[in-house]
Amino acid sequence: MPDSTEARMIAAVVRDGDVGDEVAIEEPLEIRVDGRPLAVTMRTPGHDEELVLGFLFGEGLIDSPRDAGPTRDFASNVVEVAGPLLREPAARNFYTTSSCGVCGRGALEEVEVMAPPAEPGPQVRRELLASLPDLIDQPAFDRTGGLHATGLFTADGSLISVSEDVGRHNAMDKVIGRALGAGMLPLAGHILCVTGRLSFELVQKAAVAGAPVLVGVGAPSSLAVELAGDRGMTLCGFASRGRVNVYSDQGRVVD
Amino acid sequence: MPDSTEARMIAAVVRDGDVGDEVAIEEPLEIRVDGRPLAVTMRTPGHDEELVLGFLFGEGLIDSPRDAGPTRDFASNVVEVAGPLLREPAARNFYTTSSCGVCGRGALEEVEVMAPPAEPGPQVRRELLASLPDLIDQPAFDRTGGLHATGLFTADGSLISVSEDVGRHNAMDKVIGRALGAGMLPLAGHILCVTGRLSFELVQKAAVAGAPVLVGVGAPSSLAVELAGDRGMTLCGFASRGRVNVYSDQGRVVD
Repeated sequence: MPDSTEARMIAAVVRDGDVGDEVAIEEPLEIRVDGRPLAVTMRTPGHDEELVLGFLFGEGLIDSPRDAGPTRDFASNVVEVAGPLLREPAARNFYTTSSCGVCGRGALEEVEVMAPPAEPGPQVRRELLASLPDLIDQPAFDRTGGLHATGLFTADGSLISVSEDVGRHNAMDKVIGRALGAGMLPLAGHILCVTGRLSFELVQKAAVAGAPVLVGVGAPSSLAVELAGDRGMTLCGFASRGRVNVYSDQGRVVD
Repeated sequence: MPDSTEARMIAAVVRDGDVGDEVAIEEPLEIRVDGRPLAVTMRTPGHDEELVLGFLFGEGLIDSPRDAGPTRDFASNVVEVAGPLLREPAARNFYTTSSCGVCGRGALEEVEVMAPPAEPGPQVRRELLASLPDLIDQPAFDRTGGLHATGLFTADGSLISVSEDVGRHNAMDKVIGRALGAGMLPLAGHILCVTGRLSFELVQKAAVAGAPVLVGVGAPSSLAVELAGDRGMTLCGFASRGRVNVYSDQGRVVD
């Protein structure tokens, strides 16, 4: 893998008043066929043409290589493919998860963030943040190793609600849907904790729900850190064994 | 969490000629608003109404609880929500990843599997299968902890191609797109290996590309095992430290 690609896959993040860190780059990619938008996916830049051809092949939309490359105006994060496709892609042939359009940066239109800036507070001890994943009971994960979980906590670390799902975004949707039904939104003063990595999508969901603090066991992506910083959220990654990294708004974290 | 829900999250799998195992259930869920299909997501059954409300809230389509439940004909894997929505959901407001429609089981229409049954062979040593994840070089993961990888191998364990991405499906799309460009498809006689869990979506992509063997470091879902079995693929999970579980078509695995 050439060095230039490798460098493009990693962004340096300066955490508040702390040492820098490196995170994986996550950016939206719009796929167009003969000028017509087909799909948007969150991806790590690099080998975009291969990504697009592999995606179209997997969907049964092409069966041989096609010309694929930048649009005529060289818009970033857009790859255009020469048609025609083998069949008309019905919208329902793609399963949708939340988020894009919503993130749209650069050449992507429809920039829209539905989340208000996070409310001030709460103050949370670093040690407590690091311990939250251990407080999430995962009976089905323990037996299958195949489920993500999201937990909703009070600022003092009491677990209010937890959901497991094969999809990380679904686990958070379930917790937020339950909070909506219980009249608990927005989640000001609360903490959301996920057992996996921190994608843009998860930060977006937490932000829309008004949670000021989001903790994950895994690594954040570049866009996750960017969105959390923009919304004034405290984003914590690699929470495990008494340790946690804080990537944005460290003001809520007390030692 | 009630026992009934817990039981519904786990399916027992009888591996070929081996002890049983338990896997997380993965099934498609169609979301309808006033009878109109809005989205399909792969999820673990249970708390579906909460999932739907949380999803719609996160997309800015509702701001208060709605009636949500089974359709009038009680179709399984469909949740209907009462409209109207706060705004018209443009297709581009959902980012799409591949797969559904394609999986459509039960009440979901458009059942379609574009993958031919896997070709017979190759024969692969169990020890070699278990070692494949260690052969995938992940320079960006090593520095960020935030990237999935997919590797394409020959049957004797030689690494041909590798890609990293924040999205597991993207990493596989990139490898398959590269193989398409190189005239290597279908991938008969080859092995695909992923660093994460084995979802339906990944099995689908590998099947369409004609790979007879798919190996993952993580756990498979129920639908992943089902599809692999249906297509005659060898699906291997929890590959690590000299060990590997085989969930379907164990005939290609020699000790």
